[in-house]
Amino acid sequence: MAKIPYRFYLSEDQMPKQWYNLRADMKEQPDPLLNPGTLKPIKEEELYPIFCKELAHQEMDCKTRYFDIPEEIQEMYKIYRPSPLIRAYNLEKELGTPAKIYYKFEGNNTSGSHKLNSAIAQAYYAKKQGLTSLTTETGAGQWGTALSEACAYFNIPLTVYMVKCSFEQKPYRKAVMQTFDADVIPSPSDTTEVGRKILAENPGTTGSLGCAISEAVEKATTTEGCRYVLGSVLNQVLLHQSIIGLEAKKAMEILGEYPDVVVGCAGGGSNLGGLIAPFMRDKIVDGNKVRIVAVEPASCPSFTRGKYAYDFCDTGKVTPMAKMYTLGSSFIPSANHAGGLRYHGMSPILSKLYHDGLMEAVSYEQTKVFEAAKLFARVETILPAPESSHAIKGAIDEALKCKKTGEEKTILFGLTGTGYFDMSAYSAFHEGRMNDYIPTDEELQASFDKLPKVEL
Amino acid sequence: MAKIPYRFYLSEDQMPKQWYNLRADMKEQPDPLLNPGTLKPIKEEELYPIFCKELAHQEMDCKTRYFDIPEEIQEMYKIYRPSPLIRAYNLEKELGTPAKIYYKFEGNNTSGSHKLNSAIAQAYYAKKQGLTSLTTETGAGQWGTALSEACAYFNIPLTVYMVKCSFEQKPYRKAVMQTFDADVIPSPSDTTEVGRKILAENPGTTGSLGCAISEAVEKATTTEGCRYVLGSVLNQVLLHQSIIGLEAKKAMEILGEYPDVVVGCAGGGSNLGGLIAPFMRDKIVDGNKVRIVAVEPASCPSFTRGKYAYDFCDTGKVTPMAKMYTLGSSFIPSANHAGGLRYHGMSPILSKLYHDGLMEAVSYEQTKVFEAAKLFARVETILPAPESSHAIKGAIDEALKCKKTGEEKTILFGLTGTGYFDMSAYSAFHEGRMNDYIPTDEELQASFDKLPKVEL
Repeated sequence: MAKIPYRFYLSEDQMPKQWYNLRADMKEQPDPLLNPGTLKPIKEEELYPIFCKELAHQEMDCKTRYFDIPEEIQEMYKIYRPSPLIRAYNLEKELGTPAKIYYKFEGNNTSGSHKLNSAIAQAYYAKKQGLTSLTTETGAGQWGTALSEACAYFNIPLTVYMVKCSFEQKPYRKAVMQTFDADVIPSPSDTTEVGRKILAENPGTTGSLGCAISEAVEKATTTEGCRYVLGSVLNQVLLHQSIIGLEAKKAMEILGEYPDVVVGCAGGGSNLGGLIAPFMRDKIVDGNKVRIVAVEPASCPSFTRGKYAYDFCDTGKVTPMAKMYTLGSSFIPSANHAGGLRYHGMSPILSKLYHDGLMEAVSYEQTKVFEAAKLFARVETILPAPESSHAIKGAIDEALKCKKTGEEKTILFGLTGTGYFDMSAYSAFHEGRMNDYIPTDEELQASFDKLPKVEL
Repeated sequence: MAKIPYRFYLSEDQMPKQWYNLRADMKEQPDPLLNPGTLKPIKEEELYPIFCKELAHQEMDCKTRYFDIPEEIQEMYKIYRPSPLIRAYNLEKELGTPAKIYYKFEGNNTSGSHKLNSAIAQAYYAKKQGLTSLTTETGAGQWGTALSEACAYFNIPLTVYMVKCSFEQKPYRKAVMQTFDADVIPSPSDTTEVGRKILAENPGTTGSLGCAISEAVEKATTTEGCRYVLGSVLNQVLLHQSIIGLEAKKAMEILGEYPDVVVGCAGGGSNLGGLIAPFMRDKIVDGNKVRIVAVEPASCPSFTRGKYAYDFCDTGKVTPMAKMYTLGSSFIPSANHAGGLRYHGMSPILSKLYHDGLMEAVSYEQTKVFEAAKLFARVETILPAPESSHAIKGAIDEALKCKKTGEEKTILFGLTGTGYFDMSAYSAFHEGRMNDYIPTDEELQASFDKLPKVEL
């Protein structure tokens, strides 16, 4: 067989035309979302004031195995997809490992990450339903950028509540969103009741993601024809992101490969859930032995040190409650934590899989993650986002295990995005200003103590 | 025939294995470089103290039509190349033009631009000759980033003199270079005699490209085993960049296409020279009717308002003299000019072709360029660099001409890079802080008056 190329792209006609809904193949379903008022399982209709109807349906549907990707979404996917499957020959050589390392690179689009895959779907369905505007929140800015790009394309106005400290510290992120005509508002703001209340209580606040979510949801639910959209955690997001795994699996099939280990970084789970979906299917349905490894930051260790419990999805406690691995919605990672993946909870689907022993999880301190990022950038010539670099570190460690044992395993990892807008974190790393604070057991316990007392 | 895909990638085995040297097919050669001391045509050996031998040879060789791309360079090209040839279906639709628009996108690598194509070659030949370090200068930072990436890959230490105001205003650019282990020094600095002299005279200076070049050249010529490298203007750079045009032409051939018009932005000429090389060959050798259009900023209009004359390649007057279209080496574009392409001169090869009537040139004011960039970003979902956006504007205007005449022309343009690190310019555009100052005839005349009085 010919040598496997560095970069492999599916042709347009090989691109997936359906998303894959992993829930349809799970032997046990994740516990249902709860209405925070009634503590009863939420019904699809109850989601309509927040999400557009098709997305509410996708959120609740555990049975439909494949969803057709609408033609209009396929067309926009074709502008920046397929993303390449890259054989990391240079990284293998640098490590001296017998392992074969592949990565699926999702950063080759202007938003710089995989978030665009779901942003496009969410903007499209909103437009199709005749909605006239959308709102969202953004912290670091990846999701806000992706959604701005999608909304500009489908011509639907977007308001982004951006955590005030990010708004001030990341003017370039803001400028990218503005280039795509998004209305970017520093949160807390005087455009919502909750924002005005917080400002009155604490005029100097630099904001929080919880507050930005609350403002975005208020704006959506009080504005005619407006809905709220979210870039991670949700089942619908994992569904859209399955495009990553489907493309990766198909590309590997064509190259005559199949992974022994699949590694992804884990924040809210959007990338990981999308990447692993078809491989997890093979494991569940066909009894395949593929290992699935989630990599998370030691400073925000939902899987490795969190509780599997019902919790709020947002710190503002305005959204439905989900059963998931969580550090508690009051948990806030150390300000020194530069590597993204700051979310307190985890996708309910992934949480259930982890709980059922179908996947593993590891955590790393950030200095080790940036060391891996720097090594990777030098030999593979892609500057990775700090989030993605967790997966790099995980894959490197798997490859080094192979070096010890001599096993010629095939490793696939997800490289979710580029680090262009994270250079302040890289600067902190270069200048030795990064520290590896991890939460103490006492801190976590204090947060767990505030978890809502809910069991079905 | 099947519909042409949005993105088309050559396979690895279709990638060019040779660079094309357009000079070998030019009916008249550009006038020779002159030694600034003797005013005599420079000999290859005289370049050895500045450039490594193979690059000095490539600089002087007008006869070798094709240069083999060394295996090691091909291997690094394969990590990020081939770059996609993209059919701008959405832009066509937005403009309502019957024209078919294609663009060759060179921004899909961490350095964010086409500059990497030559950086890799220059770092490789330096390493092969046994040199132990390199120096360069960088203004906006694209070249410095690309060279840092290449030097890290080939493991050769690099010092980058970065114009002090950019060093301070673009900390992220600096951080990217540092991630690739470059030693980034704000210029003027106390590491060179010329730097110390300038600092003594003017301690508060924010530096200039001319000063940074002078420091880089001094460092190279006074350090054992060190050489200076440059990212544009030079013949060797155009040779390496021919990979862009060769890939584009091959991809179009496979798709059954050939351009009626090729459009590129013009600063020093590295992208334009590379993109047009094989098409210009067809025009010269086969009498093909393809039009070649250079697009430059109205604020730095070398082709459209410059003189065809001998001039220094740098404002510090330390480099050989070249016959080229120039605004005079003392010309400095308005500080309001945000769009890159600030170089006073132009590649001698392109200057000769323009002088001989083989290509056209147009200029645009920057507000129009950013309007085109914004439109393009919305429909094509790539955020373009300001430099590249000149080509977008040029291509759009060609397409609009077709709309008027009803002609179904095929337009190819070069999209050289992404705008991630140029968001301050985009912010200025959004906030109405951009102005379109263009030099007056008097200003240009004052600069022309200082041109060296040299004729062969």
